[in-house]
Amino acid sequence: MAGDRVVTACIIVIGNEVLSGRTRDANIQFLAGQLNEAGIRVVEARVIPDITQTIIDTVNDCRKRFDYVFTTGGIGPTHDDITSASIAEAFGVALERNAEAEARLRAHYRNDETLLNASRLKMADIPAGATLIDNPISTAPGFRIGNVFVMAGIPKIVEAMFLSFRHELTGGAPVVSRTVSAVVGEGDLAAGLGALQADFPDMDIGSYPYFRPGRIGVSVVIRGTDAARVDEAAAALRDLYRQLGAEPIEGEDSRK
Amino acid sequence: MAGDRVVTACIIVIGNEVLSGRTRDANIQFLAGQLNEAGIRVVEARVIPDITQTIIDTVNDCRKRFDYVFTTGGIGPTHDDITSASIAEAFGVALERNAEAEARLRAHYRNDETLLNASRLKMADIPAGATLIDNPISTAPGFRIGNVFVMAGIPKIVEAMFLSFRHELTGGAPVVSRTVSAVVGEGDLAAGLGALQADFPDMDIGSYPYFRPGRIGVSVVIRGTDAARVDEAAAALRDLYRQLGAEPIEGEDSRK
Repeated sequence: MAGDRVVTACIIVIGNEVLSGRTRDANIQFLAGQLNEAGIRVVEARVIPDITQTIIDTVNDCRKRFDYVFTTGGIGPTHDDITSASIAEAFGVALERNAEAEARLRAHYRNDETLLNASRLKMADIPAGATLIDNPISTAPGFRIGNVFVMAGIPKIVEAMFLSFRHELTGGAPVVSRTVSAVVGEGDLAAGLGALQADFPDMDIGSYPYFRPGRIGVSVVIRGTDAARVDEAAAALRDLYRQLGAEPIEGEDSRK
Repeated sequence: MAGDRVVTACIIVIGNEVLSGRTRDANIQFLAGQLNEAGIRVVEARVIPDITQTIIDTVNDCRKRFDYVFTTGGIGPTHDDITSASIAEAFGVALERNAEAEARLRAHYRNDETLLNASRLKMADIPAGATLIDNPISTAPGFRIGNVFVMAGIPKIVEAMFLSFRHELTGGAPVVSRTVSAVVGEGDLAAGLGALQADFPDMDIGSYPYFRPGRIGVSVVIRGTDAARVDEAAAALRDLYRQLGAEPIEGEDSRK
């Protein structure tokens, strides 16, 4: 998974709370930003419910199609936490009590059997052959099996878990990104921007209009693995803005 | 699509900006909340890139599997706005200039050919046989074709578009939801909550722990189509909290 080829990833958010609208997911944005920085392209993200067969099918589909799969959610102590068991089934391995995970939980709960009850011990049940992912926030570990990384759902724990294994990921060439904005109508920019994309087929050029009271503008994001080419495209974009009578604004337009 | 059977939906977010981490999606939460209120269960949400074949394959997969499909993103005037053309291809119909869409744009841009250039006119290209979705914010319409509703990506426009066609959707029995929280460890609640779920198999009971400085607690969400049963389950949950020595807090625990 190195060199010049594109390294791909899929994020699977497991959680009824996102599909009911109760919770606005934050994990896709965090993971996508981190993975892109690491040279790993997130090609798809899915939000799926807490249903065993759906988890199995989605994980088995995605782990074949992408270099890396990252899941969030469903590894806690309650009846609706079925991710670990489902992933064991997806890999056709046993879900078994992991001695190291149990030791961590025993230490965290000071070996108090009232605290470390059967429900909490369930969090030490890990698919056979998986390696643990540290959880510096609340101890109960995630795990990696094959190319699938299984994390908790709470954003702070996802962040901590990801940072604990980030160094183990092998990315392709990191993607460099430049954003240049201007107070110009997207439709007025479109023809020139299409020509710019044609001149720089090796870049991903995205156009994101914004509408604020009294000001309509566009942020254009140029992304690519060749930093010099990205800079070249950004310079051409600045020229295009000026031809349209608009002053380029570096980055997002954050002026009030 | 009525009566007691479950009416399902899939949300497809089309946009490189979400997969790169630039943008935190807001449309899934808005649409999921609205759809659930309308008695339509969101069974899956996907975020996919601006790639024609991916859009075609995803839309064709989802429109067969779900009663309704809602897409956001990619219907603007720039080169990366390829949703309309891709969906025409998915349905095997022509993408053609829609007279009504063109008339709306001409009125909006006061028939000024400088403003209503070829790029902006592209927003009047709609798959043959589709019906328009009003856009009270920036005029350029979305459209409905078959069971697929195609909207812009900007959250304020998605909201306005959705509200314009919401009355056309036929849901099943609306889902009623009650949330009761308590300052109790999720692992201490888990066994009793599992028993509660077993007693109420017709309810979806979800457990969502929260961690704040000085306070660890759980919000439990009970969802179902029978309001009386939901209330009954909520009463049993309050009893469970009290057995654990915790006072039930109605709704989310929003105390500082």
